[in-house]
Formats: sequence, C-alpha cells, structure tokens
Amino acid sequence: MPPLPFSFVAGAAGSWRVVAQGAVCGPALPPAARFEIHEGLLQALPDGASWLLRGVTSNERYVTREEKTQLVAKQPGLGRPNATCAALIPIQKSAAWWDLTQDERRAIFEARSRHIEIGLGYLPAVARRLHHSRDLGEPFDFVTYFEYAPEDAAAFEDLVARLRETEEWRFVTREVDIRLER
Amino acid sequence: MPPLPFSFVAGAAGSWRVVAQGAVCGPALPPAARFEIHEGLLQALPDGASWLLRGVTSNERYVTREEKTQLVAKQPGLGRPNATCAALIPIQKSAAWWDLTQDERRAIFEARSRHIEIGLGYLPAVARRLHHSRDLGEPFDFVTYFEYAPEDAAAFEDLVARLRETEEWRFVTREVDIRLER
Repeated sequence: MPPLPFSFVAGAAGSWRVVAQGAVCGPALPPAARFEIHEGLLQALPDGASWLLRGVTSNERYVTREEKTQLVAKQPGLGRPNATCAALIPIQKSAAWWDLTQDERRAIFEARSRHIEIGLGYLPAVARRLHHSRDLGEPFDFVTYFEYAPEDAAAFEDLVARLRETEEWRFVTREVDIRLER
Repeated sequence: MPPLPFSFVAGAAGSWRVVAQGAVCGPALPPAARFEIHEGLLQALPDGASWLLRGVTSNERYVTREEKTQLVAKQPGLGRPNATCAALIPIQKSAAWWDLTQDERRAIFEARSRHIEIGLGYLPAVARRLHHSRDLGEPFDFVTYFEYAPEDAAAFEDLVARLRETEEWRFVTREVDIRLER
C-alpha cells in the first residue's frame, strides 16, 4: 500500500461534530464546530475553516513482524456503523526525541513504554489510523485518528491516559485532543 | 535538526554540469545539461528544466547509536572546495520492501547487506546527504546526493558497485544515476 495523504479540516462544516477540543500541552488550535477528513493534501485553508492539518499514512517505523501479525489479526477498519465517536490527536515530539537513533527510539517506544502492547489491549474496540506529518513541514509530527462506539468511550479514555503516563510521552512537546461525534 | 526540504532541478541552467545520466533499472529521466539543488520544495518544473525531484532530510530510520557515533566521527560536510565531482542517485524500492516490518528491513539493510558498514569504508572521501521522498508522493522513495574529489572517483564507483550487489538492492525497482562536475 503506497502512502496515502489526508487533510483534516475543522470549521463551520463537516460530517463530524466537535464535542471537545483542548490542548494537552503546548499551544491549542482555534475552536471549531464541525470536522471533516479529506483525501489528498489541501494546499490552503478552505473557506470558513478554522484549521487544517495534513498527514500521510506510511510504512511502519517500529513494529516487528510478530507485533504486526498480532495487530493485523485484531485491528478493525475505520467507518464501522456503530463507531459514532472519534478523536483526532495531533502530537509533536521534541528535538531530543528526533536526535535519538532508531534503537534508542524503539527501546523507549516499546521496551520501556509498551506503546504497541498497550494499544493491542484496546483492539478491536478502538480503530486507529496513524498519519506522519513531520517530513511535510507540518506543525505536528503525527496525527492519529481514532473511531469507537459510545460504549467503548471509557476504554478509549483509559487508553489515552495510559499512553500519556509513559516514558515516550515525556518527549511530547505539543498535543491537542479533539473529540468528535456523528 | 528539523527536516530540511530540497529540490533537485536539471535542465539548461545550473552550477553543475551533467557528465552522465542513465537508468540503472526502471525508466530513465529526460536528458539535461546542467543541474542545481534548491532549498525548499518547488511546486512546479522551472522554465527550461527537464526534470524536478524533491526530498526531505529526516531522522535516521536504521542506524544505532554505535553506528551513528562512527558515522559522525568520519563523515564530511558537503561543499568541500576539492569535491568537484558529485552524483545524484534517486531510487525506488518495491512494494515488497515497504510491506516488511522494521526488524525485517533492518536485518536486510545492515545484518545481511552491511549498508552502513560498506558506507563507513568510504568516509571521509565521499560526502553524502540522504533525502526521503516517498511520503511526499514523489516518483522515487529516496534521493541520495554525493560529493567527492576527482582522485576519489574510483572509490566512489567501488562504493556504488558494492551496494548494488547487496540483498537490499534486490528490492530496488527503479534507479537513475546522474554524475556531475563543476
């Protein structure tokens, strides 16, 4: 699967209603009422939009074959009819993170922070798509989009709370959490 | 260091003379007489240009701390006055490569192909800058730019020949080799 580009637009229009939006750390994004995901990289903020973020799905950077096999067996696709809740969580990591070598980042990401293992515990309840943004010159390094059913909302809160307690998250310098419903 | 975007333009103008240009595998690029590197991502082919490639320097994807320490100790910068020879080698890898997980790609890249170890043997003679292009939607996945002195030309030929014999290179589906002098 080649990298797929997406644009995330919030403003007056969109099929998702923004039910909460706030900065976990670093600067916030301007408030917005509605949200939409577009295929492709928009070059300019659409009329009436409050903010635009962009990202590209890409090859995985950390998972091993064994982990990928477990993920593929359990992970659901986006767009499930009962998944009427969603979240968009853009994050930026520090220069110190990006100065680490691959083995050092992997050690923090999984050996010490258990990022993949934690995520596996919330499958198939929470569907997830990761987008890479750093090489596009975007303000955030990653944009992760999640979908889940209302009855799994507590599980989703638990997932993000656990990740934010990890050693990996000490390298997060900006994080915005946008909650959506349709 | 944040990712730095560059554009590679060949055509009638440019500070480097194109002395050879050919496809190693896959389709060639249109012929050109001169070559220039521009900072930033050009959005359109400049007037009189034959081709435009784009890429972004980014965090390293494979090297360990031990390898990076060796690289940093030996690798020279670009722009040495005696480095009047250069090469631009864009490559594309197969879908099979990109479907591999991180541990599988690392095993082929270094444990079996010795990509980093081979490259270390040609430092400080050959200066090198790697640009990532795949997530930008470019036709090539990587663009590597090299500079060296005329007396190191034979060593440079040896370097590229050795890399092309590796297991890693079996995943290369398109490669163009452009040689430059100033």
